[in-house]
Amino acid sequence: GLCKLYQLSKAGKLCVPAMNVNDSVTKQKFDNLYCCRESILDGLKRTTDVMFGGKQVVVCGYGEVGKGCTAALKAMGSIVYVTEIDPICSLQACMDGFRVVKLNEVIRQVDIIITCTGNKNVVTRDQLDRMKNGSIVCNMGHSNTEIDVASLRTPELTWERVRSQVDHVIWPDGKRVILLAEGRLLNLSCSTVPTFVLSITATTQALALIELYNAPEGRYKQDVYLLPKKMDEYVASLHLPTFDAHLTELSDEQAKYLGLNKNGPFKPNYYRYTFPC
Amino acid sequence: GLCKLYQLSKAGKLCVPAMNVNDSVTKQKFDNLYCCRESILDGLKRTTDVMFGGKQVVVCGYGEVGKGCTAALKAMGSIVYVTEIDPICSLQACMDGFRVVKLNEVIRQVDIIITCTGNKNVVTRDQLDRMKNGSIVCNMGHSNTEIDVASLRTPELTWERVRSQVDHVIWPDGKRVILLAEGRLLNLSCSTVPTFVLSITATTQALALIELYNAPEGRYKQDVYLLPKKMDEYVASLHLPTFDAHLTELSDEQAKYLGLNKNGPFKPNYYRYTFPC
Amino acid sequence: GLCKLYQLSKAGKLCVPAMNVNDSVTKQKFDNLYCCRESILDGLKRTTDVMFGGKQVVVCGYGEVGKGCTAALKAMGSIVYVTEIDPICSLQACMDGFRVVKLNEVIRQVDIIITCTGNKNVVTRDQLDRMKNGSIVCNMGHSNTEIDVASLRTPELTWERVRSQVDHVIWPDGKRVILLAEGRLLNLSCSTVPTFVLSITATTQALALIELYNAPEGRYKQDVYLLPKKMDEYVASLHLPTFDAHLTELSDEQAKYLGLNKNGPFKPNYYRYTFPC
Amino acid sequence: GLCKLYQLSKAGKLCVPAMNVNDSVTKQKFDNLYCCRESILDGLKRTTDVMFGGKQVVVCGYGEVGKGCTAALKAMGSIVYVTEIDPICSLQACMDGFRVVKLNEVIRQVDIIITCTGNKNVVTRDQLDRMKNGSIVCNMGHSNTEIDVASLRTPELTWERVRSQVDHVIWPDGKRVILLAEGRLLNLSCSTVPTFVLSITATTQALALIELYNAPEGRYKQDVYLLPKKMDEYVASLHLPTFDAHLTELSDEQAKYLGLNKNGPFKPNYYRYTFPC
Repeated sequence: GLCKLYQLSKAGKLCVPAMNVNDSVTKQKFDNLYCCRESILDGLKRTTDVMFGGKQVVVCGYGEVGKGCTAALKAMGSIVYVTEIDPICSLQACMDGFRVVKLNEVIRQVDIIITCTGNKNVVTRDQLDRMKNGSIVCNMGHSNTEIDVASLRTPELTWERVRSQVDHVIWPDGKRVILLAEGRLLNLSCSTVPTFVLSITATTQALALIELYNAPEGRYKQDVYLLPKKMDEYVASLHLPTFDAHLTELSDEQAKYLGLNKNGPFKPNYYRYTFPC
Repeated sequence: GLCKLYQLSKAGKLCVPAMNVNDSVTKQKFDNLYCCRESILDGLKRTTDVMFGGKQVVVCGYGEVGKGCTAALKAMGSIVYVTEIDPICSLQACMDGFRVVKLNEVIRQVDIIITCTGNKNVVTRDQLDRMKNGSIVCNMGHSNTEIDVASLRTPELTWERVRSQVDHVIWPDGKRVILLAEGRLLNLSCSTVPTFVLSITATTQALALIELYNAPEGRYKQDVYLLPKKMDEYVASLHLPTFDAHLTELSDEQAKYLGLNKNGPFKPNYYRYTFPC
Repeated sequence: GLCKLYQLSKAGKLCVPAMNVNDSVTKQKFDNLYCCRESILDGLKRTTDVMFGGKQVVVCGYGEVGKGCTAALKAMGSIVYVTEIDPICSLQACMDGFRVVKLNEVIRQVDIIITCTGNKNVVTRDQLDRMKNGSIVCNMGHSNTEIDVASLRTPELTWERVRSQVDHVIWPDGKRVILLAEGRLLNLSCSTVPTFVLSITATTQALALIELYNAPEGRYKQDVYLLPKKMDEYVASLHLPTFDAHLTELSDEQAKYLGLNKNGPFKPNYYRYTFPC
Repeated sequence: GLCKLYQLSKAGKLCVPAMNVNDSVTKQKFDNLYCCRESILDGLKRTTDVMFGGKQVVVCGYGEVGKGCTAALKAMGSIVYVTEIDPICSLQACMDGFRVVKLNEVIRQVDIIITCTGNKNVVTRDQLDRMKNGSIVCNMGHSNTEIDVASLRTPELTWERVRSQVDHVIWPDGKRVILLAEGRLLNLSCSTVPTFVLSITATTQALALIELYNAPEGRYKQDVYLLPKKMDEYVASLHLPTFDAHLTELSDEQAKYLGLNKNGPFKPNYYRYTFPC
């Protein structure tokens, strides 16, 4: 959706101001990173009852979603490999303790493949052919494009639905690969979104609408805007009492020393909010 | 240093283009997050031989440095509290499993205080007065401003240098607080910077200089610039062989689908590179 | 069951040899520790969809089950407290990074209580009265004795079944406490046991029966025996290929140096098999 | 030392009672597991300043020491492999998220080898010949037998002492392998033992002596005994105040239900005290 907006804006065809709430910090980190850290485990358990300890898993993509998935599985005792196209994210994966490999290097040995790339055909028929009997394939990334599911709908393969959202795809030699949600998003199809995350996301959207509505004439033109940092911080502050978290306040002297307003915003726009688990 | 450059730029007094390499991704994450994750342990051990398991620690500030310190100490079995002024960073700390408190709530019970705020007078004399006998105070953040060391240089307190960089400050009742590096940076004073991190930082600086030198007339004006993302990615890619990491390449079809050049840059400028440990 | 056997044996009333497979290493560690590390998350998610990040949790008991539960929740970003009666287990909890408290110290602030003690009335009506609105109470330990559920069946409290295995107990002021499986075992009632764990446990039981059947006259008398370590090791070795794990073999010289048979057993009977996650 | 005692006892030549304090729980877990979890990092940093993030490490032996070392390095972002002779410990390593391999499978790719086996010649000259340039070899296990250091004292190899406890062994082609403490114990040679651990160990030894001295005639014969569990628990309880840990006490009814004395001992002798980090 967002891509379309940016394309319209680029082409000068956007006829109203738009707010890109998807890339606000609270949305990105909570809806993607922290939520996926939990829903990857939940989605796999509810569908397959698989034990995570000792399993070899490859996670394709080391963005927010990939980081959430790898952190969770590593913590549960899985041995996790990462594939990446971006050298910065690759180097992060190294420093976080994951081998960065090409999918073909590990395809024969892994028990689980999880795609989180936003890309298409990340797992191809050729690769599915080489997977182990009993291995699991699922998608946490984007739409239903990441696994080439269409390539599995051929006469020599048998599909067996073993329960809702779980298909066994059976090769002529009897090998079974377990495909979840027919390659659609595991976290939406086979898990739930916690109310806490919904609250953060909905608050972000509501505040964006209020901002657009209340903004003085001319502040926003026919373009796509990121949520003002101060509002992003406000969304966060509304959710702190849930955790009985107590903010420290700057003294006047400290605010002056840092060149900040005591009420925020506290960071420059390009600040990246590192997220170690 | 950077602040000065931005002030000059704002005042229209910057007479050459400048590159803000400090905020490049590779510099920020490696020199700060990953390096501090290791140097906090190293600095504390070399100076005090303290055991981390079971210790109660408060980390002031949950930016890159604070995240590195908390992740390391949590992994070593410490019980870690966080103080923060920024609601977004506070919420991250919650989701990462830390209680967010005001310093005064825990000052009497903690064994170690670590400052990572970039601020001044984060730990005051009043708070030092209330610390436990044998507790440790140190600074991983910025300069020597964070702990109000000057306030400890009063006649009723005795200073005893027990080894290089380690002072016992002794209260009239015999209580000792262990002050490291007189409040200067622990990671620079009492630990070392790994050659790998130096290599990343030096490469970033060298590439920035080359870019400024080679850039066509007019690309850079008298202003402060962030390192072009493509160069940031290049710094990372130069360091991948160290870890025998293998990048995945986009197919033409995939690059087109994502709207990316196959050689990068792979991310929009505002991308935040989440860092889970 | 096991207690009864030991009582019979003590009283001289056991009329056949018996094998205590429950305390074999492979049974204890896999069925309890590693299985519970996963099923606590699974059981809570399937029943309540609760988000773990930032939640305050108290785990009563720090045996195998308690260790599995705390490790999992800590990894998911919960803040975990432990209660214990045993000083050794308490000290372990400290070194593993948990505050050891009495239940009453944290009862008003926690979001989730999990009992893993094997004891009775670990959570009393008086304590349930003081819990927060919306908090969750469940049992991972033993039978249905740990939470005093009977005390909640009084006229002033209303029970509302919101889904299978999930009851809201409602106080006169509207406060709701979420009770799972009516205090019975969460892992059996609301989660599943992975086939891998079943395989280990069933193999242990089968081998114990074979040993009792094949043993030469007189090896086993009317008593309760622990599984011979060599058979415990054999159960483990049968499951290594699942993980493509490759055992190292002792050379003759090394076996002699260690005073071991090359084929095991490799440890003295009192060896404890530390389990770090 | 302990082996000798058991041999004397077996041969009927022990002329006084002896207490095996080494295998008491508090000694084993604290002096070995928890202490090594910290000293492996400390020993490596003080000698080599190596960065742990992204490094490939093989740990030989997955007993208490191996568990401490792997847990620490994994937490710091290393990729860790384990070698083992014992199938139970191997299966634990799998469930804890480590690939179990033979040393030869990874010898060419690892950056660091750490031995923790108690065995001899675990790393041979043939294997040292195949290590990468710049790789580190050290011993956390037992004496100086684990690495075949003698095999490196041959004319074609040059030794260069680069600082105290650190030798570069240089192959004719210029390859350097970094040998720490000439293969002796890294934790004793290049790190320190925290006072907390010394306190636990010394308390255990003192209580064992007091027990032997005070025991009524005939309780101990000319044999080797494990420390009575109650005293092991007492050692632990003496150290709980350090962490402000609060023990829960059994009610009379609960003690009766569990068949325990309210003051302990709380566990049967064969209890294993699982240690998840």
